[in-house]
Amino acid sequence: METPISDSIGLKIIPLGGLGEIGLNMAVFEYGDDIVIVDCGLMFPEPDMLGIDIVIPDITYLIERLDKVRGILLTHGHEDHIGALPFVLRQLNPPIYGTALTLGFVREKLKEYELDNKVDLRVVRPRDVVDLGVFSVEFIRVAHSIVDGCGLAIGTPEGVVIHTGDFKLDQTPVDGELTDLATFSRYGEAGVLALMADSTNVEREGYTLSEKLVGDAFDEIFPRCPQRVIVAAFSSNIHRVQQVVEAAARCGRKVLLNGRSMIANVQIARELGYLRIPDDLLIDLKEMNRLPKEQICMITTGSQGEPMSALTRIAMDDHKQIKLEEGDTVILSSRFIPGNEKTISDLINHLYRRGAEVYHEKVSEVHVSGHASQEELKLLQNLVRPRYFIPVHGEYRHLVKHGQLAQRLGLPKERCILAVNGDVIAFSNGEGCIIDRIETGRVFVDGKGVGDVGNVVLKDRKHLSEDGMVVVIIGINQGSGEIIYGPDIVSRGFVFEDESQEYLDEAKKVVVDTLALVNTEVRADWSEVKLEVRRVLRRFFNKTIERRPVILPLVLEM
Amino acid sequence: METPISDSIGLKIIPLGGLGEIGLNMAVFEYGDDIVIVDCGLMFPEPDMLGIDIVIPDITYLIERLDKVRGILLTHGHEDHIGALPFVLRQLNPPIYGTALTLGFVREKLKEYELDNKVDLRVVRPRDVVDLGVFSVEFIRVAHSIVDGCGLAIGTPEGVVIHTGDFKLDQTPVDGELTDLATFSRYGEAGVLALMADSTNVEREGYTLSEKLVGDAFDEIFPRCPQRVIVAAFSSNIHRVQQVVEAAARCGRKVLLNGRSMIANVQIARELGYLRIPDDLLIDLKEMNRLPKEQICMITTGSQGEPMSALTRIAMDDHKQIKLEEGDTVILSSRFIPGNEKTISDLINHLYRRGAEVYHEKVSEVHVSGHASQEELKLLQNLVRPRYFIPVHGEYRHLVKHGQLAQRLGLPKERCILAVNGDVIAFSNGEGCIIDRIETGRVFVDGKGVGDVGNVVLKDRKHLSEDGMVVVIIGINQGSGEIIYGPDIVSRGFVFEDESQEYLDEAKKVVVDTLALVNTEVRADWSEVKLEVRRVLRRFFNKTIERRPVILPLVLEM
Repeated sequence: METPISDSIGLKIIPLGGLGEIGLNMAVFEYGDDIVIVDCGLMFPEPDMLGIDIVIPDITYLIERLDKVRGILLTHGHEDHIGALPFVLRQLNPPIYGTALTLGFVREKLKEYELDNKVDLRVVRPRDVVDLGVFSVEFIRVAHSIVDGCGLAIGTPEGVVIHTGDFKLDQTPVDGELTDLATFSRYGEAGVLALMADSTNVEREGYTLSEKLVGDAFDEIFPRCPQRVIVAAFSSNIHRVQQVVEAAARCGRKVLLNGRSMIANVQIARELGYLRIPDDLLIDLKEMNRLPKEQICMITTGSQGEPMSALTRIAMDDHKQIKLEEGDTVILSSRFIPGNEKTISDLINHLYRRGAEVYHEKVSEVHVSGHASQEELKLLQNLVRPRYFIPVHGEYRHLVKHGQLAQRLGLPKERCILAVNGDVIAFSNGEGCIIDRIETGRVFVDGKGVGDVGNVVLKDRKHLSEDGMVVVIIGINQGSGEIIYGPDIVSRGFVFEDESQEYLDEAKKVVVDTLALVNTEVRADWSEVKLEVRRVLRRFFNKTIERRPVILPLVLEM
Repeated sequence: METPISDSIGLKIIPLGGLGEIGLNMAVFEYGDDIVIVDCGLMFPEPDMLGIDIVIPDITYLIERLDKVRGILLTHGHEDHIGALPFVLRQLNPPIYGTALTLGFVREKLKEYELDNKVDLRVVRPRDVVDLGVFSVEFIRVAHSIVDGCGLAIGTPEGVVIHTGDFKLDQTPVDGELTDLATFSRYGEAGVLALMADSTNVEREGYTLSEKLVGDAFDEIFPRCPQRVIVAAFSSNIHRVQQVVEAAARCGRKVLLNGRSMIANVQIARELGYLRIPDDLLIDLKEMNRLPKEQICMITTGSQGEPMSALTRIAMDDHKQIKLEEGDTVILSSRFIPGNEKTISDLINHLYRRGAEVYHEKVSEVHVSGHASQEELKLLQNLVRPRYFIPVHGEYRHLVKHGQLAQRLGLPKERCILAVNGDVIAFSNGEGCIIDRIETGRVFVDGKGVGDVGNVVLKDRKHLSEDGMVVVIIGINQGSGEIIYGPDIVSRGFVFEDESQEYLDEAKKVVVDTLALVNTEVRADWSEVKLEVRRVLRRFFNKTIERRPVILPLVLEM
């Protein structure tokens, strides 16, 4: 089914994800017969998406235009920018462009899905220019909480569009690779049609602190720790790992890596030269157990309190090899991701119960953000001086605030395009606006199923989660309509059956009474009877214990 | 069943709730034949307590000693200090002591449960002393985010125990009622056996800001608002309401009160003289609709994004009388309560979608905490100079941190008692320690049911919420064991049935095959057959779509 948009209009930019939400970043750039895609990210499920494993963008628009897609451009290797690739690549398979580390992480991810040999990964370096149909794309170095990130200057027949990816203006990045303001300036001087910039931290005043400061905090904390130091961090945060390793080395500690993704990402980053760790600094679990406790530093995943992670098991005193003791120190060197606060808080409490001392971002400078704050966003805006501004990567309030920020710098309100996912932003002859909307949305991945869990199923799960389920079984003779079995009642998650048999018997009696009444009148229409059974039970449960379980009457014709 | 603790030991303090968690505050003081209870609070359910409405403490220990209970002492009127009363008073009914506003709120709450005429509420004023058996209790004024709060000096034959309740050292409280440091000092000078102090904000450095600053923020924001101002706050925060009203009056705005508890609490506080609002300042909805928008200020509940609240309905554009417009301003003058961050964030995004401007505690000084920060906690500690210190009101990490703080001020580690709910702290001849533990815990209230939902039911709800439920029905002849109905499969919250009929038919076939196999062998033991059906279906679902629904095989003997 074609969407009703004329393909003759100049440049179209269509965000498929990431505008009005954090995560799921993906944008389509279309001109005539050419399409390029920027990023292909996932989102982790929100609390109301019960049982969902991950969320990916709906790419129907692209599937309808498969022959136009010239390439996927990746800004960096975070899950919210590359995580949907294993699913998207099953349906479209153009060349994928990114820097070495970004593609290193992509290849590792695709291995899990046995897709790594079926894709065309093309490594670029910052300031490389890639030609894709009418588009000519320059990669621009940006600093972020992952190594080797880039923004993009996308040359189109209508003018240049700058996309920042995720960035900050760290003046002392760990690898010395500064955000390439010279290149952003060059485009600003030459004239930029539109700027799409990261809105994540637009609510924060001032400047985001430098990654280096976290290293300083480690240097302050590590020597004071009487026994083991355990640092939890995101495995993609290679600079963080580098700083932990260096701080550990400086105070005579050996390093144990823990967590599947930590081990994999460190290996990739070392192979590609992004991470420098002398071999003799690394130890395994056996060696750790032979060393004095004050010579040990462990780097691990699990900073979000993931239930199956080693760190959570250690905190719950449920880890076979590692037992925490008084004197041990745990540093959560990572963000409290919104939605995970409670789980992380529980993790910290359990660590204290084991006797450990805990440092985390709320009480110590053991984490900094990877996203630009207000002053950095203003600086970039003033360097690039775009004709149009499109805030991206943020919840709706972030986009609004970022638009207000641009307007305070002088951008006319009508040239600040407040778009959300699915909006079709068109540029023609230097003018731009939202001209249409396409169907877009979130596709739920639950186990192996992609897209087969929708809102009806989620609504059922929500309902089930609140008061459980009551199944009522009635067997009737197909011919006579006579009741030959039941009614019988079985429940799950409703009341504790072993202790509430009397109550359930009462409920059964309500059904019996109902059946006695309707049996003579509407015996022919059992769907009516089902409705009536559900109605009387709902009333009974509500009146007696004020609960509203899912009620499933089953009338079995035999 | 008596617990095995000797009742001969001097003074016993037993926290029933609030130590190792936020909320559920309740503590027992026992000496010989006398018991007094401090506070009787609820906790709102944590995310994993699916379908639970509220949580209350387990008071089995008190029920076993009903004849000893001399009174309940309330420190202030917050839900986490009075909210369990309607349930606890069904089982024990001693006199309840508190200040006028605290008991005003209690009476209102008990009205809902038709208990208000069955209880003995006794109003005290700060510095009043109440004698209860061997105990002699002085109420001490403390500043907090609710009016008329008190700490307690509990005189016992073993010495005085100071309990702070919830407090801060606000030097400019809105009503001028300072925390009564003179009285705390007097006890300190005379000698205090033990101090139990609020640990909520122990992770915060410095001093908690004064409530007055929020008024200053209102004065700065209100005049700049081009149209309506809507302020969301906790209805118990009478000083906050007072400040909104005054700021509104100063810039010529009339005030509409919204929300059942807001209207009730304002009425109670006005009647008791704690809140001063001229009658002609208040308007109703009809009057509001006649006034120009820049003359309107609404004070409402719903600051936590509660789904049924007026504010959420306004934000979703689902409110009959009130439609937000560009130019309207919403101020969330309240804390983002941990666990509610996502819901509040959604609320803010929706408000922006309606065109409103939004202020909240993360971006503006429109809220201050009611709990003391580190410097205040130190000051109190140094004034009271207790022999023993028992940190209370906090998660485990807060208690640890508060203990560390006291030790940095010179308290020996062995006199810092790190107790959790159920620990029996005993004092005798000036020495104190934890001597035992009693059974305690959380009682779940779900609808009208108190305590009938336990961990098994919650586990089922959690399981149901993740992948839904599959019911398999098989009818067999009671005599011959012959299958006369099914197998039939019905699901909820698993896959969308309308679209997955084929898949469910496949699952049915798996059951048919299983039955064909076992029917001849173990026909006699249908519980074995049920287990086998569950086993093969679990394997089938896991292999085909990697989901693990609750599987409920029903074998009906007919």
